[in-house]
Amino acid sequence: MRSHGQAAWELLLPAAAAPARRRGRALQEALREAVRSGRLAAGTRLPSTRALAADLGVSRGLVTEAYEQLTAEGYLRSDRGAGTWVGDAARGRLGGAPATGATPDPGGETRAGEALDALGPRPATPARGAGAPAVRVDFRPGTPDLSLFPRAAWSAAQRAVLARLPHPALGYPDPRGLPELREALAGMLTRRRGVVAGPERLVVCSGVAQASSLLGFVLRARGLDAVGIEDPGSPEHGRLFASTGLDTVWLPLDEEGLRPEPLAASGVRAVVVTPSHQFPSGISWSAERRAALLDWARAVDGYVLEDDYDGDFRYDRAPVGALQGLDPERVVYTGSVSKSLAPGLRLGWMLVPEALLAEVVERKRTMDLGNPVLDQAVLAEFVTRGAYDRQLRRCQRAYRERRDALLSALAEHLPGTGVSGIAAGLHVIARVPGRYGPAERFLARSAEAGVALRPLEEYGTARPGDGDVRLVIGYAHLAPAVVTAGIRVVAEAVGRG
Amino acid sequence: MRSHGQAAWELLLPAAAAPARRRGRALQEALREAVRSGRLAAGTRLPSTRALAADLGVSRGLVTEAYEQLTAEGYLRSDRGAGTWVGDAARGRLGGAPATGATPDPGGETRAGEALDALGPRPATPARGAGAPAVRVDFRPGTPDLSLFPRAAWSAAQRAVLARLPHPALGYPDPRGLPELREALAGMLTRRRGVVAGPERLVVCSGVAQASSLLGFVLRARGLDAVGIEDPGSPEHGRLFASTGLDTVWLPLDEEGLRPEPLAASGVRAVVVTPSHQFPSGISWSAERRAALLDWARAVDGYVLEDDYDGDFRYDRAPVGALQGLDPERVVYTGSVSKSLAPGLRLGWMLVPEALLAEVVERKRTMDLGNPVLDQAVLAEFVTRGAYDRQLRRCQRAYRERRDALLSALAEHLPGTGVSGIAAGLHVIARVPGRYGPAERFLARSAEAGVALRPLEEYGTARPGDGDVRLVIGYAHLAPAVVTAGIRVVAEAVGRG
Repeated sequence: MRSHGQAAWELLLPAAAAPARRRGRALQEALREAVRSGRLAAGTRLPSTRALAADLGVSRGLVTEAYEQLTAEGYLRSDRGAGTWVGDAARGRLGGAPATGATPDPGGETRAGEALDALGPRPATPARGAGAPAVRVDFRPGTPDLSLFPRAAWSAAQRAVLARLPHPALGYPDPRGLPELREALAGMLTRRRGVVAGPERLVVCSGVAQASSLLGFVLRARGLDAVGIEDPGSPEHGRLFASTGLDTVWLPLDEEGLRPEPLAASGVRAVVVTPSHQFPSGISWSAERRAALLDWARAVDGYVLEDDYDGDFRYDRAPVGALQGLDPERVVYTGSVSKSLAPGLRLGWMLVPEALLAEVVERKRTMDLGNPVLDQAVLAEFVTRGAYDRQLRRCQRAYRERRDALLSALAEHLPGTGVSGIAAGLHVIARVPGRYGPAERFLARSAEAGVALRPLEEYGTARPGDGDVRLVIGYAHLAPAVVTAGIRVVAEAVGRG
Repeated sequence: MRSHGQAAWELLLPAAAAPARRRGRALQEALREAVRSGRLAAGTRLPSTRALAADLGVSRGLVTEAYEQLTAEGYLRSDRGAGTWVGDAARGRLGGAPATGATPDPGGETRAGEALDALGPRPATPARGAGAPAVRVDFRPGTPDLSLFPRAAWSAAQRAVLARLPHPALGYPDPRGLPELREALAGMLTRRRGVVAGPERLVVCSGVAQASSLLGFVLRARGLDAVGIEDPGSPEHGRLFASTGLDTVWLPLDEEGLRPEPLAASGVRAVVVTPSHQFPSGISWSAERRAALLDWARAVDGYVLEDDYDGDFRYDRAPVGALQGLDPERVVYTGSVSKSLAPGLRLGWMLVPEALLAEVVERKRTMDLGNPVLDQAVLAEFVTRGAYDRQLRRCQRAYRERRDALLSALAEHLPGTGVSGIAAGLHVIARVPGRYGPAERFLARSAEAGVALRPLEEYGTARPGDGDVRLVIGYAHLAPAVVTAGIRVVAEAVGRG
């Protein structure tokens, strides 16, 4: 094993230069101090005694003795024949308490980032409290089925990309994104989502959250001080825009889309909307409201951020094209592979109006210089070869099956429950009759039974007060049998009303 | 080929539903309009006539006729037997002129981002002006040799990672970075760079530029309004910090490091420094100045950003440990794989003082939710297996050889040239005697001969006025023979003084 740089071992050189009679002890002291001080971190593999002795110009016996001594003292640990490592008994000298968030989230499945693209707040359900039973079925929305990630195909595309990519492509990226990916995405989005796209308008970014940050900074620099968000909608947008210096204003929805009067009265000049499949209500905006929103944007010289977070997953035949296709100079369109491939790829896109383009690109540049190149090239390969379309069809089949399982289970086990937003996406809204409630009891009993649910009221200001229990149920990440079992468990826990 | 989603073709459904006698024409009109409007982008592959006919419920002959008609008109193009694509003759309806920067940079090798990690400004050399001869040898600093990227080993690590990574790891990332990578990097940096690191202090980011942005936002939120930068140093830091609302103040260096008096008088409470191998001068800060800087930081309750941009490349034996090891609570340490692997990976790290950690992580979260997971896992694999150390040794050997070629060529072809900053890094400072000057003529003649050079004065405010020509010469990306040839060409172009 000759995989070690020499830098750290040079710490030991002064000891090696000590007079012969105390060289062994000096070496042990230096090594011990290096471990104690954290300069050799726990888990670091030490060079072989032969290699270190050669590097230091001392006898191998001296090094062996030092390793044995420190192993005996607990600074090092060794596996017979496999090598010697720095142990974790000694503690470094970093001041302060363990870092905030340094311990894993007890919920495990809800890391800090997860709520973001899910466009939902951190869960406040009792399921995550201390002493609560483990979550067995988690219906909180936002995560796709990660087991559907096409590992073999992705791996093959990675190999192909590394074999063909010219050397200069490994250099500093174009902050707008890899040209071949922008070309591929523009074609794909035009075809699938009815947008008006050209590669020159497309900016590759790390996902919808970064798109929101980028646009937030640009709008703030233009003097805007607030952005409107749908009510119900995503409180997480508030946190994102707050990081750019913008306030957020809830704007009420009805069953057709954003209500025009409160929008006009709000004074904002930018809004974030989800017109194809509103989050979380699941409605599709009416044509009139789409047109009215664009009229408003033109009248106030404003902009619309269209978050097409699950536009790829429609289960009916009605084409719901993106709003952007109606006015590419007023709508910033954004989407990502988070639901179709994996959120961990952090790969998304924006279509940006001409007037904002240079500012968005400059922000992207100062934020990270551009997205990593290899994943971009792999996605371009994927889209161009048709593998992305295949993946979408595969997800769509799986998710439709799960939705159907959910609808059947609700009908069977919680009869009377109304369900909306079922035509598309990865979640539905369920309105469970008041006889199963009240909501606090419903959620608490479910949580006690190991089922995590998220109430609709976490996504907005409405409090209907009719006693019904409104839930946002994510199903895409759960196998059909798990969906069915989860709803049955809930029904048993809350009792027949 | 069944790789097409159905969405776009649904645009054609109304035409397919037209009365039989005008169905063919309606189909052609709808297809033509879809191309003309940009809804079907140039380069999009059309479904086979059989598949589209089946989807639309029309006869295959009708589709064949439509394809042939539109191919004849130039909307589509077809390769006999290989398929039919949307042509690029029709122009979409995007308003406005071509996007700023949409055309490739004529220089090619200096994309917008490149200057950033290079910590240098955009070149202002005549080599890039209109009509200037092509750059044959580019000595501008900042790029490693991209041909040294270990493609086979990286590809193998990618395969291994995709085979073993558990599904949940593909979900939303930890904004601090993948735990296994933070563990591996903390050990590696402790060992190689003498820092005090634990995984709980390490934040994975997209590189030094993002580290600067993250820290800039955090300091701005704490009320700071300016950051000090070394003079000479990197003007690009000014642009990065400006994007976070911070001004930058040049602080003079001497041959030992930052001069204490101007620092104290500046009123800033944060500085960016490169003490291990100062950019661009190449000096290593003296121990006294390192201590003085930390004393200053403690006295003003300030912070130091240590940009260890090329700390991995030392050609002598003197260990120059990172400043961070002396005070991990005052120094934010940052580095990346941009010089050791490839800038296109956009993968770097920060070691963050306890007091700033939560704010930095929250900024990282709102900026992009965290770095992409797969590349992080691959780098962890690389570091843990020893492949990263091997790569560093390989680069170091190559770069030392190129440095030696440069020093020999300067001594032979431009005798009397003083060279400094040669002990480490990917560039040197050359001070060419005034008899070869003046500088404007020297640079212009070199550029005319196809050699791009960058003068030292682009990196700071000093204007010595002694007539010597001071250059920052990057050599790491050039083969030894190219280095030698480039210097010979310069000598011939500028004439013996």
